[in-house]
Amino acid sequence: MTTKVEMEKDFEVEDPVFIEGLAGIGHIGKTTVSYLVHHLDAEKVGELYSHHFPPYTIIRDDKSADLLKNNIYQVQREDAQDLVFIEGNAQASTPEGHYEVAEKVMDLIEEVDASEVVTVGGYGTGDVVEDPSVFGAVTSEDARENYERYDIDFDHEVGQIVGASGLILGLSGDRGCSGICLLGETPGFLLSDPKATEAVLQAMEKILDLDLDYSDLDEKVEESQEVLKKLQNLQQKQKSDQDQQQQDLGYIG
Amino acid sequence: MTTKVEMEKDFEVEDPVFIEGLAGIGHIGKTTVSYLVHHLDAEKVGELYSHHFPPYTIIRDDKSADLLKNNIYQVQREDAQDLVFIEGNAQASTPEGHYEVAEKVMDLIEEVDASEVVTVGGYGTGDVVEDPSVFGAVTSEDARENYERYDIDFDHEVGQIVGASGLILGLSGDRGCSGICLLGETPGFLLSDPKATEAVLQAMEKILDLDLDYSDLDEKVEESQEVLKKLQNLQQKQKSDQDQQQQDLGYIG
Amino acid sequence: MTTKVEMEKDFEVEDPVFIEGLAGIGHIGKTTVSYLVHHLDAEKVGELYSHHFPPYTIIRDDKSADLLKNNIYQVQREDAQDLVFIEGNAQASTPEGHYEVAEKVMDLIEEVDASEVVTVGGYGTGDVVEDPSVFGAVTSEDARENYERYDIDFDHEVGQIVGASGLILGLSGDRGCSGICLLGETPGFLLSDPKATEAVLQAMEKILDLDLDYSDLDEKVEESQEVLKKLQNLQQKQKSDQDQQQQDLGYIG
Amino acid sequence: MTTKVEMEKDFEVEDPVFIEGLAGIGHIGKTTVSYLVHHLDAEKVGELYSHHFPPYTIIRDDKSADLLKNNIYQVQREDAQDLVFIEGNAQASTPEGHYEVAEKVMDLIEEVDASEVVTVGGYGTGDVVEDPSVFGAVTSEDARENYERYDIDFDHEVGQIVGASGLILGLSGDRGCSGICLLGETPGFLLSDPKATEAVLQAMEKILDLDLDYSDLDEKVEESQEVLKKLQNLQQKQKSDQDQQQQDLGYIG
Repeated sequence: MTTKVEMEKDFEVEDPVFIEGLAGIGHIGKTTVSYLVHHLDAEKVGELYSHHFPPYTIIRDDKSADLLKNNIYQVQREDAQDLVFIEGNAQASTPEGHYEVAEKVMDLIEEVDASEVVTVGGYGTGDVVEDPSVFGAVTSEDARENYERYDIDFDHEVGQIVGASGLILGLSGDRGCSGICLLGETPGFLLSDPKATEAVLQAMEKILDLDLDYSDLDEKVEESQEVLKKLQNLQQKQKSDQDQQQQDLGYIG
Repeated sequence: MTTKVEMEKDFEVEDPVFIEGLAGIGHIGKTTVSYLVHHLDAEKVGELYSHHFPPYTIIRDDKSADLLKNNIYQVQREDAQDLVFIEGNAQASTPEGHYEVAEKVMDLIEEVDASEVVTVGGYGTGDVVEDPSVFGAVTSEDARENYERYDIDFDHEVGQIVGASGLILGLSGDRGCSGICLLGETPGFLLSDPKATEAVLQAMEKILDLDLDYSDLDEKVEESQEVLKKLQNLQQKQKSDQDQQQQDLGYIG
Repeated sequence: MTTKVEMEKDFEVEDPVFIEGLAGIGHIGKTTVSYLVHHLDAEKVGELYSHHFPPYTIIRDDKSADLLKNNIYQVQREDAQDLVFIEGNAQASTPEGHYEVAEKVMDLIEEVDASEVVTVGGYGTGDVVEDPSVFGAVTSEDARENYERYDIDFDHEVGQIVGASGLILGLSGDRGCSGICLLGETPGFLLSDPKATEAVLQAMEKILDLDLDYSDLDEKVEESQEVLKKLQNLQQKQKSDQDQQQQDLGYIG
Repeated sequence: MTTKVEMEKDFEVEDPVFIEGLAGIGHIGKTTVSYLVHHLDAEKVGELYSHHFPPYTIIRDDKSADLLKNNIYQVQREDAQDLVFIEGNAQASTPEGHYEVAEKVMDLIEEVDASEVVTVGGYGTGDVVEDPSVFGAVTSEDARENYERYDIDFDHEVGQIVGASGLILGLSGDRGCSGICLLGETPGFLLSDPKATEAVLQAMEKILDLDLDYSDLDEKVEESQEVLKKLQNLQQKQKSDQDQQQQDLGYIG
C-alpha cells in the first residue's frame, strides 16, 4: 500500500459530518475547507501521504521544505454535529492513485462513522460570471431532497466530476452514506476564485449550521494562491522544458 | 488486486454464452449489449469496479453520482442457451489495467462455465458507409466455420483489436473456450452509431437465437450517447486546460 | 507478478547460448531470431505473457485472435552448443514493465544455465546506407575480445540501448554471464530492414557456428512485416483519434 | 518492491553526513557528488537499482553495457564527520517511482544513522548569469540558522523542488533529521554547468569541512556530460520517432 494515514492523535468525534476539499480547479475545494478549518480553529489529528501524489516538495516562505500531503482535522461542537475535515495541496497523479487515495479517505469516513459526507470542488465553465452558482451532485434522490432547501443549483448540466470529490461521493453512496458534492462555478483559468469560494462557503454555512463572517476570506484565498503559484510556475517551466527532456518509450532498439 | 467483482446474487445459469460489450469506439459494444440486456429483461447479478478505470464520476440526470463500472447480468432461457452479459461505461486507462480487467472477466467466464464467448466492439475505418459490415475475429478456425453461416464478414483487413474485446477473445481461445469478436464497421468519429449497432445486433440475433424488433433501439442508442457526451465534454475541457495544468516529470531539480 | 512464463515442456539443453530478439526498431531483433528459429527447426517449449505488453490482440490471416507474447524455443546440437531462443511481437509498454520482463527472461537464462547471451536489436541512424554495420555492446572487456574476431563494429558512437536487449545484456553482465548485444544499423523509419537483418544474421552465423543460406530470408522478413503493419496501422489510427479521445488528469474538479 | 539496494560491503561510518546528488537539471547534483567521491577517494559500498528508472542501458566507451543505477559510497574521516554519498545517472521515471526510490534512500539514511542530510540539485531560471547563486531549502528554521553562516542564498523565490532532492529533504525533516537542499542556479538548457557546479561545491566545502582545489573539476564535468549526451541523443531520437511509434490507448475497439 503506497498511500498512508499518519495519525497524531485519536479521533474524538461522534456522528460527524465528513468534509473533503483538495487541490483542484480554481483551488476552490482546498481554499473552502482551509478557510473552515481556520475559522473553526479545528484540531489537526493526522496527515495522509501518497506515492501517487506528484513528486514535488514545496519550499515554504521560511525556506523549509514541505512534502505534498492532505491534512486531517476534527471539530467537536456542543449544539451541532461534530466535523471532520480533510484538506490539502495535492491529489493523485494517476487514475489508480485517485482510486487508492479515495479508498483511504473512505477508511477514515468509516472510522469516524460519519453519516454525512460533503465534498468540495470547482467546475470550470470557461465563462466569467458575476454571481457564481454552486452546482450540486448527491449520493441519492433522498439526499437531494434534503439539500434542496439550501441555495444549491440542481438544474445544471454538469455531467461528471474528476478526481477525489467525485470518487468519495460515489463510494459514499455505495456504502450507504448520504452526501453531496458542491462544485463552485468558476471560469476554469483562474489560479483561485474568491467569489466561487464564497458562494460555496455560503452553502456550507447552512449545511453545517455555521456562522461565518468572511472577513478573513481574502487572506485565506491569498495564502492558498501562494502555494498554487509555486506549483503553477513549476508546471510552466516543465512545459517549456518538455521538448528538451521528454521521455517516452517509442524508440526501442 | 485493484479490480474487483461485487456479486449481488449467485449465478443461476447453465452452460451459458458469455457476452461482453464495454465503452469503446462508436460505443457499439456497450450499446449493443445494453440493448440486449434491456430487451431480454436480464437480471442484474453484480458489478465490476477497477482502480484502472478513469477517475471520473458520472452525474446522472437526477444529479446522483455514479462511479464508472461494468454491470453483470444473467438470462435463463427455456428453449435456448442461457446468457451472461457484462456491459458498462468504462474500460481500463492503462495497458496493465486492460489485462487485469480482462483476467477478472475470464474468472467470471470460468465461474459460469461458459463454452462460448461473444465480445462486441467497433472498428473505425474513417469512412461513412451506407451498409456497415460486421467484421469477425475468432478463437480458432473451428470457431470460424461455426460462425460463417451468419452474416459476418471474414474477408476484412482488420489487423488487431484494442482493449477488452480482443483480450477476452484471445484469453478465451487460450483456455479452450470457443468464441467470436464482432466489430461493427464505423467511421470512428461518431459519438454513437445506430446503423453499426443494428448490424451487430442482427448478427447477435442469429448467434444467440433471439427475436429482436429494434423498435426501441434508437432510444437505447440515445441513452448510451448521453453518458458518452458527458465524458466527451469532459475530455474536450481537459484538452483545452491541458496546457495550463500539464504535469510531467521532465523538470527535475 | 504480472509477467509469467508458461512452459509446454521442460528444457532439454545443456550449457546453451541464450538468444533474444523482440519487437523493436526495424523489427530486426524479432526477424533475426524468428529466421533462426525457422531455419534450425527449433522446438517451441513455452511462452511469456505480460500485463505490461500493449493491450492489443492480433487478428491472424485466418481471422483467429492471437495475444501479444514472446515465444521460447530450444535447439539441441551434436557438434556445437545448444541454443535457447526467445522471440516475439511485443515489448513492455512502461519502464517498470521493461524491467519486469527482463527479470523474467533472466530467470529463464538462469534456469537453462546459459553461459553466453546474445541479444539482438536495431539502431536507427536516420540515414540509409548500402552496407549496414552491426554495432556491438558487450558484458565486459573480456567478452569484447572474444567477439572481436567476428565482423562486428566496436568503433561506433552508439551511447545506449533502449528496452529488453539492453537490460538483458546489462543484467547478464551483473550476474557473471558473458554476452553481446548486436544492433543492426538501420535508418529507423523502415517497417522492416532485410539488409540490416541479413548483416546481423551473418554475425550470428559465426557466433553460433551456423550455416545459413538466406534463401528464405525475404519470406521471413515479409512475414514479420505483416504483423508489424497491423500494429503500425493501429498506431496511426490512434494518433489521428488522439485529439478526440485524449484522456489526461489535468482537469480535476 | 521493485527498488533494491545491493551492498558490496557493510557501512563502517559513525554519525555521518548523508549527501545525495542524482541526474537532473544541468546535471549539477550528479556532477557535484561525483566530484566529491573522486576527490575524497570514497569507498564504494553498494548500488541502488529500480524498475522505475528509464529502461535504458548505457554503452560505455569500451563498449561494455551499464545498467542505470545509483552508487553508494562512504568516507571515514579522522578530524571531521564521516560521509556517505549516493550519486548516479538516473532518477525514477514515474511519480510513484520517485517516492519509492526516496523511501529506499531514507532506509539508508536510517541505517547509517545520519544526523545531517545534504541533497544537491539544480534550479533552472532561464537566464545565463555570471555568478550563479546556490539556493537553499532546509528541514526546519533551526537548520536554516545553522546554514546561514555559509554562502547560501535564502532570499530566493524558488517555490518547489522536483524529484529525489526534494523528497529526501522533506522526508528527512519529517523523521527528525536536519538537512539542506542546495540548488545551483542554472539557465536550465545547459547539458552541464561547471560554474553552477563549482558554486555548489564551494558551499559543500564549507558545510563538510573540506579542502578542494577544483583543478580536476573540468574533467569531472566533462565525464558527467558524456553520459548525459548519450541519454540526450536518445531522447532527441525518441522525440522525432514519436509520431511514428506513438502508443496510446485512445483507440479502443
